[in-house]
Amino acid sequence: AANLDENLSGKRYASYTVFKGKAALSIHPILPSFSKLESGGSRVSRNGSVMLTFFPAVGQRKYDYTKKQLFALSPTEVGSLISLGPAESCEFFHDPSMKSSNEGMVKKSLSITPLGSDSGYFVNITVVNSVEKTNDRLSVPVTKAEFSVMRTALSFALPHIMGWDQALTNHHPSPAISKPRVERPHPDSEWER
Amino acid sequence: AANLDENLSGKRYASYTVFKGKAALSIHPILPSFSKLESGGSRVSRNGSVMLTFFPAVGQRKYDYTKKQLFALSPTEVGSLISLGPAESCEFFHDPSMKSSNEGMVKKSLSITPLGSDSGYFVNITVVNSVEKTNDRLSVPVTKAEFSVMRTALSFALPHIMGWDQALTNHHPSPAISKPRVERPHPDSEWER
Amino acid sequence: AANLDENLSGKRYASYTVFKGKAALSIHPILPSFSKLESGGSRVSRNGSVMLTFFPAVGQRKYDYTKKQLFALSPTEVGSLISLGPAESCEFFHDPSMKSSNEGMVKKSLSITPLGSDSGYFVNITVVNSVEKTNDRLSVPVTKAEFSVMRTALSFALPHIMGWDQALTNHHPSPAISKPRVERPHPDSEWER
Amino acid sequence: AANLDENLSGKRYASYTVFKGKAALSIHPILPSFSKLESGGSRVSRNGSVMLTFFPAVGQRKYDYTKKQLFALSPTEVGSLISLGPAESCEFFHDPSMKSSNEGMVKKSLSITPLGSDSGYFVNITVVNSVEKTNDRLSVPVTKAEFSVMRTALSFALPHIMGWDQALTNHHPSPAISKPRVERPHPDSEWER
Repeated sequence: AANLDENLSGKRYASYTVFKGKAALSIHPILPSFSKLESGGSRVSRNGSVMLTFFPAVGQRKYDYTKKQLFALSPTEVGSLISLGPAESCEFFHDPSMKSSNEGMVKKSLSITPLGSDSGYFVNITVVNSVEKTNDRLSVPVTKAEFSVMRTALSFALPHIMGWDQALTNHHPSPAISKPRVERPHPDSEWER
Repeated sequence: AANLDENLSGKRYASYTVFKGKAALSIHPILPSFSKLESGGSRVSRNGSVMLTFFPAVGQRKYDYTKKQLFALSPTEVGSLISLGPAESCEFFHDPSMKSSNEGMVKKSLSITPLGSDSGYFVNITVVNSVEKTNDRLSVPVTKAEFSVMRTALSFALPHIMGWDQALTNHHPSPAISKPRVERPHPDSEWER
Repeated sequence: AANLDENLSGKRYASYTVFKGKAALSIHPILPSFSKLESGGSRVSRNGSVMLTFFPAVGQRKYDYTKKQLFALSPTEVGSLISLGPAESCEFFHDPSMKSSNEGMVKKSLSITPLGSDSGYFVNITVVNSVEKTNDRLSVPVTKAEFSVMRTALSFALPHIMGWDQALTNHHPSPAISKPRVERPHPDSEWER
Repeated sequence: AANLDENLSGKRYASYTVFKGKAALSIHPILPSFSKLESGGSRVSRNGSVMLTFFPAVGQRKYDYTKKQLFALSPTEVGSLISLGPAESCEFFHDPSMKSSNEGMVKKSLSITPLGSDSGYFVNITVVNSVEKTNDRLSVPVTKAEFSVMRTALSFALPHIMGWDQALTNHHPSPAISKPRVERPHPDSEWER
């Protein structure tokens, strides 16, 4: 289906990146797609996500952007991450070729494990390619302050990648004139809802 | 009263759905309605809600959408759900025919009970129809990660279904020229408020 | 100073009201005012607030709106309310005539005290008028679910009544063409900030 | 690079200020800058921040605005502040001349330490100028209620100073007509993501 959301002029990009000794981790949000309905309205046809990008370090404050590894968090995976307790872990498994003929050839996993003493988390990506016989692993320690930024940014992003901000925007700023109403709150409105 | 909010062209829809073995649960927000005041402004005339839709499973990853059961959460019920502790339960009772001649014929209840070990909740709907002598019950286990998405989406939606986002939007982007003011914060402004 | 913010056409109103046996409590947000600066921009000249309105009950689900009592929460008082622990109390004192010749004649206090067992709060207003020798007190029990709605609505409202939502809105959707930049995150940007 | 974001007409300013016996502390948010990309979109070229401004008291409710000290919090420092536990402390060090020939001449530090008994924090700034041989220190006690306002305002500001609100705004309100789609949620969409 033709989707005008793909028109990128005017699109704005923002990310949050932490640079560490062995690798860097950058996160950025991706908007959902909408498809037009016959009613004239539109509906989320594909959820957005939050993309995690890992870059290996190749020297003092130098990173190799050609060797990046990607992992896109779904809304439920974002929910898992933002509700993670200080001593809890979580792990997600993705197959980038799911439902294609290459299914099972590449296996990606993302794990988040506590650094200990409520001081942050290790964020690890493992990519196993059974065709090319490669096994890449990148690990980025994230401080409590950095994880607080990620948690706040992901909590903010979550309703947006699900399209709820757009579903909750009133596209009719000025309602038509109707009969004047009593401006007082009325108890019945609570019981009837 | 005529209400232009009912014009649906341009309206955007978004939901969050979890598919489980015996049933699926989908939630989506519904905007409040405003009525015009004589002053030219407008006021919430009916609160929005968050609609829960349950679908029974009729096979492997197949759901019967004609047998859906609906339950609309009011702002206060949303408040109850988002403040639910990990070991707490809540239950709501609705009569879809309240204040009509059919009052009491259909009784709906929604209960949310912990799965145990801080691992999520069961969300159950029961619909008892005393005329048709039916008693339908659908139950969906929701993981901690999925409930975190619901909690975040409902917390985001709550001020919107109450119309507070619209009441807090300044519709006057450019104030008129006024006397230049000292730009410094002043202690008296704190005490006078 | 002339302030176009006072033009009310297009203004939208929303509140949250709980109706109880002896009184009802309604809360609604009030926007801040901005004054124009010589630079062409504008600055908050008076903070917004959250208005609490109490109505006494005069019968079964009947309230006397002419006997309402008002209490406007400042941003700091909103901060106190939303950070209240389940067993904590808070109390605020206002003098509606502060800095006028009537200072001290009317004393208002608002107190919020726990109902016990993490089940909500009593919200009480006391208005002592030493001229008219009156002492009015209204008290509304607020359930945990209702307080959760208030906390969520007030947390949402707080940055808006302080004008931070407007200060954080970019009024320049399309920056001018500048030199093309490398799109990759760069470690130096973190250290230089 | 020319940056139209510097056009200040229409810009709105808001802050939050606490006035105490020995000094006042004011905080206000600063927007990120965007640079245009060749695709026609734009990207954050410099993160925003939250500026803390300290003013020494020079008498009863009088403050000397010429002796102000500034400290700009980066997104990660904001993350540290909003995740601070009631008994925790944090400290940040800035060098306003970093990477210039004056590097190391002026050292600023900001520390936030608990007042004790979950009653708030001391916010302290120290500015050591090794050229002018000065050592300035200002300290402002912040109540629990005031810190709750700061935490809420900073949590709100964080996604904005990172530009995520702009990256998550759909600049395409009306998608083009596409093939009509089934409006029902479908389980496969969950597994495929």
